[in-house]
Order: sequence, then structure tokens, then C-alpha cells
Amino acid sequence: MRVDVAFTPAGLAGAEVAGRTVFVVDVLRASTTIAVALANGSRGIIPVSSIDEAMKLVQTLERREVLLAGERNATRISGFDLGNSPLEMTESTVRGKTLIMTTTNGTRALLATTGAATVYLAAGVNLSVAGARAREALEQHRDLLVICAGREGSFGLDDAYAAGRLLALALGGRRLRKGLNDAALVSLDLARRYGVGWLRPLMASCAGRDLVSLGFRDDIALAADEDSCPVLPQFADRRITLAPVTVTAAAQ
Amino acid sequence: MRVDVAFTPAGLAGAEVAGRTVFVVDVLRASTTIAVALANGSRGIIPVSSIDEAMKLVQTLERREVLLAGERNATRISGFDLGNSPLEMTESTVRGKTLIMTTTNGTRALLATTGAATVYLAAGVNLSVAGARAREALEQHRDLLVICAGREGSFGLDDAYAAGRLLALALGGRRLRKGLNDAALVSLDLARRYGVGWLRPLMASCAGRDLVSLGFRDDIALAADEDSCPVLPQFADRRITLAPVTVTAAAQ
Repeated sequence: MRVDVAFTPAGLAGAEVAGRTVFVVDVLRASTTIAVALANGSRGIIPVSSIDEAMKLVQTLERREVLLAGERNATRISGFDLGNSPLEMTESTVRGKTLIMTTTNGTRALLATTGAATVYLAAGVNLSVAGARAREALEQHRDLLVICAGREGSFGLDDAYAAGRLLALALGGRRLRKGLNDAALVSLDLARRYGVGWLRPLMASCAGRDLVSLGFRDDIALAADEDSCPVLPQFADRRITLAPVTVTAAAQ
Repeated sequence: MRVDVAFTPAGLAGAEVAGRTVFVVDVLRASTTIAVALANGSRGIIPVSSIDEAMKLVQTLERREVLLAGERNATRISGFDLGNSPLEMTESTVRGKTLIMTTTNGTRALLATTGAATVYLAAGVNLSVAGARAREALEQHRDLLVICAGREGSFGLDDAYAAGRLLALALGGRRLRKGLNDAALVSLDLARRYGVGWLRPLMASCAGRDLVSLGFRDDIALAADEDSCPVLPQFADRRITLAPVTVTAAAQ
């Protein structure tokens, strides 16, 4: 069994993804925002890679059932209904709506999952739910891959810490040293080093510092609120929805 | 001033490299091997990206002054004079010779340095010399970038540890938290976590474990021998040679 982490989606080969149970992590902010939107009743999120694609897609759908969401450089795209802040995803805004979403890094990570067996989204707000599913996958002898969105193609501390927290839950006390790649080893190290509080690694990261300087400090506080949004987003058929509850999960 | 680390050359934009003092790190094994070759009297190393390119280039040079060196999957390329083991770079073999070299990851990292002000190679065997030069660069208010060769486009613990050791020397006690990217922060963490002995992080890395299983355990022991080869390789005009001694260095 293999348990690997990719610190960025860049350079991931199809063979590394094929057949795996994949978790995509973009704590600041796409995976957090998507978890909150689904928890508040959104019917689903369609990630697209460009503003153009979002604009074309919205024209094929019933406009009042759809919201355009997304950011460039952390700021809402002109003409869009929403940015990429989890605080915008209130129940009164998103219930019953489909979101078409384009973000700088998160979308790229999702599009790198082609060929995976199953793709989930993980963040701090749904850590335990995601960790339980990762653990189940290991118990079913499935290979795990955590893809960090990272930051403009480079390493992000926020996502690497999240990957470590997720793997720690997935592995429990189990030692699987030979089956971990170097990024997985270092993620687990980071989880140990920073401990259980999300605020310190999120505020230390470049993504966190940039969000603070742009006035999004409250987004970080929300992203740091562990298990505040215990849902499991799943990406399948180009759409993110709540994962079907499995028999195992229901029996817990 | 910026002090950044790239865990892989993949996704590095020209703007991140332009005008910087760059250190390329491929501890297992290209930067170690190159330092040893230069210390043992090689006239220079020409890195090329393919076997084809190496074969074409060798035909334009005086054959008895040239050695073909390189590996694919850690093993010597068929028809080449040398592999990529530092143990092969003995004085009797390399003195006075130019090496044409192609390696899987190291060459890619070197070719990502286009536009840099100066490019050096760093490893454990030349850590203090490289660290002193990095420190000088910071004192001259130059931005630093450490490019880790990594492993088939993904994160390598061996190179990240080396980057952290190098930056710790460059920064001394200086705090420059705002000027460090997330990868630089984590590299410094790794250097602290593993301490000053190279063997543990090298043996924990996938690259190290693969080399052991291929019978190259002695290469790791050599790569772990800190400061055993105190030279500073510099990459300029497509060729790696010993860096000219600066006035500052000579005065020390």
C-alpha cells in the first residue's frame, strides 16, 4: 500500500493518480469554502479552470439556479456573484444553488485527479470526516494520494500541514514508513511540529499572510475552526457534491 | 530581500529566478558528484539534458580530453565512461578532463536557472563553503533562491534538508521571517528537526532508500561526509567550474 503526498499538482503523472483514493487540499480557501457551501445546502459546485469557461457554462444553465463564484489574486472576479470566501457561503445565499467556481490553485488541483478511483476534498473544517474516510480506504487496502493545491505551482505550508493532519488520522498509530513518499513523511512531521491548532500554521503561511493583508483575516479564523463543518465533498463527473454515506460511515 | 526555496524546478517562473543568487541542490547525487570531480581536478562539467545531446557534443570535442558521465534510474548509461557516483570521480580518472554529464533530476534543475545572476551548486560535502557564499550574497543585499532537484518532479527530503542547512548558515541568527517563502520555512524546520548529521535524513529519503537497494550505500556515506570536499562549483556559460575566489573569501 502507498500513502503519498504531492505538494503541488505540477508534475503529477497519471500513473501516480490512477486508481487511487485521492484527497484534494486547498485550505486557504477553496476546499474550506466548498465544504461550507455544501453544508449550507448548495446542490453542487462545478469547478472550471477559466473565467471564460465559467461564463460559457452559466449560459447553458437556468441562471437563477446558478451562482458564479471565484477569485483571481484572492479577489472576487468582476461580474461574479461571489468570491472565494467561506463567509459568503451562507445558507440564504447558496441553498438549492449550483455554484460554478474558478479559483487560482484549487481548480488546478482538482483537474489533476483524472483517473483517480475516488476524489474527496479535505480541509480543517471537515478534518475528522475526511480522516475517517482516508482510514477506511487504507483498511480496504487502497492507495492514498493527497494533492495539495499549493500556491501558484509552489509549496504551501497551509496545505502541507493539512495533509499531515489528514494522514495522521488515516494512519492512526500504524507505521507504514516504507509506503510513504518524502512529502508524506514531511507532512506528518509538520503536523507533529505545529500540533493540533490550525491558526499558527495558517498564519505562518504565505497564503495566510496575504489573506490578512487583503482583509480576509476572518476567513482564516473560519478555516482554522476544526470540524466545524463535518461534511465530505466528493468530486465526480466534473461536479462536487456531498459524498454518499457509506454503510461503514452510517454504522458509526 | 527574499530568501526562497523551490522544492522542485517544476513550475519555477523566470521572474522568480531573474537576477538572483541561486544554489542548485541535488545531494543524491549530482551536486555531490560534481563537487568531488572538480576537487579531484576535472576541468569542468557540461550538463546536458539528454543522452542524444551528450553523444552529439562529445563528437565536437577532443575525445581523450572528455568523459561521458551520467545515469538513468541511478544506473550508468550504456556506452558512457562513468555513471553518477561520486566514488567514480577519482583523481586518476578525472584530472584534466571535461565531463559531459546527464542526470535525471540534477540537469533539469540546472537548466531552470536561466536568468539568474550567479548559480552555484551545493551539497553536504561543500556545505560550509556554499553557506559562506550564500551569507555573503545576503550581506550584499542579493535575493537568494535554492532550487532543489527533487525526484522525478516531486519533493525530495534529502534536498530539502540540504536547503535548510544551507539557509541556516546563510541567515546565521538573523530573522528574516517575512522574506522567506513557505518552502524556506519548512526547510529550516527540517534542518532543526534532523540536526547536523546527514546520514539520517539521507537514509530516510526515497532517493537514499533506492540507492541502498541498488547497491550504492557507499555513495550515501560519502554524500553525508560534511565539508569533505570544500569547493564551490559555479554554473556559467553552460559549464560548471570552480567559482573564482572572491576578494572577500581570500581575505578570510
